[in-house]
Amino acid sequence: MAVAARVNEERYVVGIDFGTLSGRAVVVRVSDGAELGGATHHYPHGVVEDALPGSSRRLPPDWALQVPEDYREVLRTAVPAAVRDAGVDPARVIGVGTDFTSCTMVPTLADGTPLSELEDLRDRPHAYVKLWRHHSAQPQADRINRLAETRGEPWLARYGGLISSEWEFAKGLQVFEEDREVYDRMEHWVELADWIVWQLCGAYVRNACSAGYKGIRQDGTYPGTDFLGELAPGFERFVEDKLDHPIGSLGGRAGTLTAQAAAWTGLPEGIAVAVGNVDAHVTAPAAQAVGPGQMVAIMGTSTCHVMSSDVLREVPGMCGVVDGGIVAGSWGYEAGQSGVGDIFGWFTRTGVPEAYNQEATRRGESLHELLTRLGAEQQVGQHGLVALDWHSGNRSVLVDHELSGMVVGQTLATRPEDVYRALLEATAFGTRMIIETFRDAGVPVEEFVVAGGLAKNQLLMQIYADVIRLPLSVIASPQGPALGSAIHAAVAAGAYSDITLAARSMGRVHAHAYQPDEGRARRYDQLYAEYVALHDHFGRDPGLMRRLRAIRRTALEEEVG
Amino acid sequence: MAVAARVNEERYVVGIDFGTLSGRAVVVRVSDGAELGGATHHYPHGVVEDALPGSSRRLPPDWALQVPEDYREVLRTAVPAAVRDAGVDPARVIGVGTDFTSCTMVPTLADGTPLSELEDLRDRPHAYVKLWRHHSAQPQADRINRLAETRGEPWLARYGGLISSEWEFAKGLQVFEEDREVYDRMEHWVELADWIVWQLCGAYVRNACSAGYKGIRQDGTYPGTDFLGELAPGFERFVEDKLDHPIGSLGGRAGTLTAQAAAWTGLPEGIAVAVGNVDAHVTAPAAQAVGPGQMVAIMGTSTCHVMSSDVLREVPGMCGVVDGGIVAGSWGYEAGQSGVGDIFGWFTRTGVPEAYNQEATRRGESLHELLTRLGAEQQVGQHGLVALDWHSGNRSVLVDHELSGMVVGQTLATRPEDVYRALLEATAFGTRMIIETFRDAGVPVEEFVVAGGLAKNQLLMQIYADVIRLPLSVIASPQGPALGSAIHAAVAAGAYSDITLAARSMGRVHAHAYQPDEGRARRYDQLYAEYVALHDHFGRDPGLMRRLRAIRRTALEEEVG
Repeated sequence: MAVAARVNEERYVVGIDFGTLSGRAVVVRVSDGAELGGATHHYPHGVVEDALPGSSRRLPPDWALQVPEDYREVLRTAVPAAVRDAGVDPARVIGVGTDFTSCTMVPTLADGTPLSELEDLRDRPHAYVKLWRHHSAQPQADRINRLAETRGEPWLARYGGLISSEWEFAKGLQVFEEDREVYDRMEHWVELADWIVWQLCGAYVRNACSAGYKGIRQDGTYPGTDFLGELAPGFERFVEDKLDHPIGSLGGRAGTLTAQAAAWTGLPEGIAVAVGNVDAHVTAPAAQAVGPGQMVAIMGTSTCHVMSSDVLREVPGMCGVVDGGIVAGSWGYEAGQSGVGDIFGWFTRTGVPEAYNQEATRRGESLHELLTRLGAEQQVGQHGLVALDWHSGNRSVLVDHELSGMVVGQTLATRPEDVYRALLEATAFGTRMIIETFRDAGVPVEEFVVAGGLAKNQLLMQIYADVIRLPLSVIASPQGPALGSAIHAAVAAGAYSDITLAARSMGRVHAHAYQPDEGRARRYDQLYAEYVALHDHFGRDPGLMRRLRAIRRTALEEEVG
Repeated sequence: MAVAARVNEERYVVGIDFGTLSGRAVVVRVSDGAELGGATHHYPHGVVEDALPGSSRRLPPDWALQVPEDYREVLRTAVPAAVRDAGVDPARVIGVGTDFTSCTMVPTLADGTPLSELEDLRDRPHAYVKLWRHHSAQPQADRINRLAETRGEPWLARYGGLISSEWEFAKGLQVFEEDREVYDRMEHWVELADWIVWQLCGAYVRNACSAGYKGIRQDGTYPGTDFLGELAPGFERFVEDKLDHPIGSLGGRAGTLTAQAAAWTGLPEGIAVAVGNVDAHVTAPAAQAVGPGQMVAIMGTSTCHVMSSDVLREVPGMCGVVDGGIVAGSWGYEAGQSGVGDIFGWFTRTGVPEAYNQEATRRGESLHELLTRLGAEQQVGQHGLVALDWHSGNRSVLVDHELSGMVVGQTLATRPEDVYRALLEATAFGTRMIIETFRDAGVPVEEFVVAGGLAKNQLLMQIYADVIRLPLSVIASPQGPALGSAIHAAVAAGAYSDITLAARSMGRVHAHAYQPDEGRARRYDQLYAEYVALHDHFGRDPGLMRRLRAIRRTALEEEVG
């Protein structure tokens, strides 16, 4: 009887994580964060890279667009399916929170209508959503960086010295320069993290995280009209005309669910809708890691590191530092490694011989599992190798995408499992380099908390603990971002007074699941010293790798020409 | 009639090449070097690495022995079979010549009986033949080198500054220190190149090539008793008691075929037996490449470079320079690359995924052929890679077997054929480094002549021509060493006055089969500059690679311990 009564009193929140290819909704119990049900909806148009829907005209290289209606479909299908899967009464859902890939941008009218949904603009590529990995605004980014450095713009250091082609200004300048009509008709240049919230509550609130990390908003202001005018005449009013908008704090309430959105989702009209957020950053509270010095690594194809701190410092090579960028009231730091799981995947696809496939099949293992098992059988340093994890360039701390990967120490006795383990270790060394750079800049790192798909590789986790000499905690939810969004929904609904408190009840972590082993750590200190030597030789004075890229480009042009 | 008469006047020679696993006899026409027939005999005992024949006692690591009777079997089986295969009248054979792996050594009695054939010594490992790749005398070699350097021994520079553990002194000192009874009963310490000649003609003649390159014989003398006594008390008389013996010039006659050897081989008693020779060096005349500046590369699992010159210079990192070491009257230079085909083989075994095997099977190609074809489809530099070819250490010009291989420039787009081509190119860069070191030391290199199994890879040959910017000739005989031995037999028999003349008639080469292409050569100049930068960074100051080896050794000891 008491239990039944309690069940009837339970309240729930819905977290929705919008990824690159699909959106996933999770229903979470407010009292303890239990994930009761979930559902995923794949975007019908996926990533638009070849041609616009219904068109045969090829898009240029490095374009990556999306179709806004795909996101609304997630609201209409995945949310009701998740509630059904959870078996809860929708009437007991008190809030909804969201997170999105970033920096993903869309040009809209004043009411939030994407320009791609206007009849006369549906064949204009620049009217569509520019996905985070739309990379064709690199020339614009290069000019932004050069000019900012020349003018000594104070905000540049907050981004480790470099603005990315993925971010709001480079993408916005590309629209301005390549399709002036779309630019002129655009009334807002909107992060999708905020656009989806707008769809839910009918109000446009710009979230502090995106505005800070991707929108160059620092100390309450943006790059000035002088800077913008010098960048491109006519672009002076980009901030005031298209970008600037009232800021909402993370965990704040953007508004309440509209009748329209209630009809889409099957949730009660009027419940709280949380301010939008970014997938990596929203994961920190899901792992109970919003305190100073708790670095959260979301480890998948690449790794994103986020960490809160009481202090503001300029850390060389970080992606950014933003006031309230992870939780309101703290400085949120972000760094990243551009290739991690991608490198392991590349190696298993291209560098492992047939006999290993046969052995893996025989044992019912994946190649990753086989190589991990074989790699785990050896002592630290036994393979005699050290690698640089730059196959996809280096984000932090060198911020150089012309760098490339290498493995040193190969002999005729070197086996695939040796190289695989050396690649795992190289990414751990890359993480240690980031941690030490933060520490050297005066931002302490005390604990390492892992989320993301790679957390399930126990050898990898132990290597990280041994290499970085820190206790390593692992998020206990397989849906970190969606759980994080649900936590934000609970705070927006008033169930908790702030994110830190909500995280304590609703977050899920295996605290200190891995401890460094002193013997292995000492051996890794030796190997890390060699990694640093290679890192500085090839990275700090990157002549050789850049010249190899230049030679390659010339050769490729000749082949095409 | 005239033709038949000519055939009846034709004379023949037999060349016998004693390799690591088998001996091969070839019957060659004296007038034009035509190879009329051949036969191979595999050594029944192969390489003895685990235990002596009939024993279960394990040999220590890095031992590699052989059984002398196996070589006599080649005389008894392969020679008559080759004559039958050629269909010539044995009575028209006028000489026999041989070459052997080197430095391969045997302790004998005064009459040439190997100590391993004495009843009371057959269970003593040190009584057997020590094959060239018996590597357990490294501590002895290290001590020889340290002492020679300390004492400023003048002969050290003739060997690029380093005496190998494979050579006569290190192996002899090992016998002295590890089995004094065998050492004391040994009356000669004999190169197998000379022992096999002794079996044929009943006389012990020490060939100038082995004595010079492997026996530290320079300017007519050996290391002195002072040096030897300081090396090991009691070892003072090693040269005069065991090693020193009259020298025979290459192409000279060691003696005539004994009745016993005539019975074994089916050849006429009394015909000329040439002075012994080494497999790599004997190949030069077979490729018509005995003139100054003609560098012959015998390219297989490793590469051996031999070249004659009018000048004596000290070339850093060469294997050796010997008066009359290739042809009498010239300075013979030798250099080497310790891993070439071995590296390509290692990569195809360990670094190529299943789909490539399937594609190769479908097309009826080997993996090497598939990777070569795919590698040939790209422009120079297109893969964006540069590699160091040190997977088996570096012989010339760094003389450091603690070095290791590496590939720089890998990205997520790097394919197996890219790495394969980069490895081919790395060995070509290694060859260019050797050529430039010779030139810088004042020894010109004008032409590059390739023998050995890798000569059939056309992509590899063209890469070498482009990288070294020299016309590249290719030997036209698949049995270079055996043909070279036959040429020496013809000179020993008096059919030609010297090796140079004999080579002109009997050698076979596709002269200038490959020419460098200026466009590709220019691009390779750029990549070679990067190779040199890596070579000098990792090779001239080899801290990192040596430390990796040390870390690996410690880890392996821990695993065993």
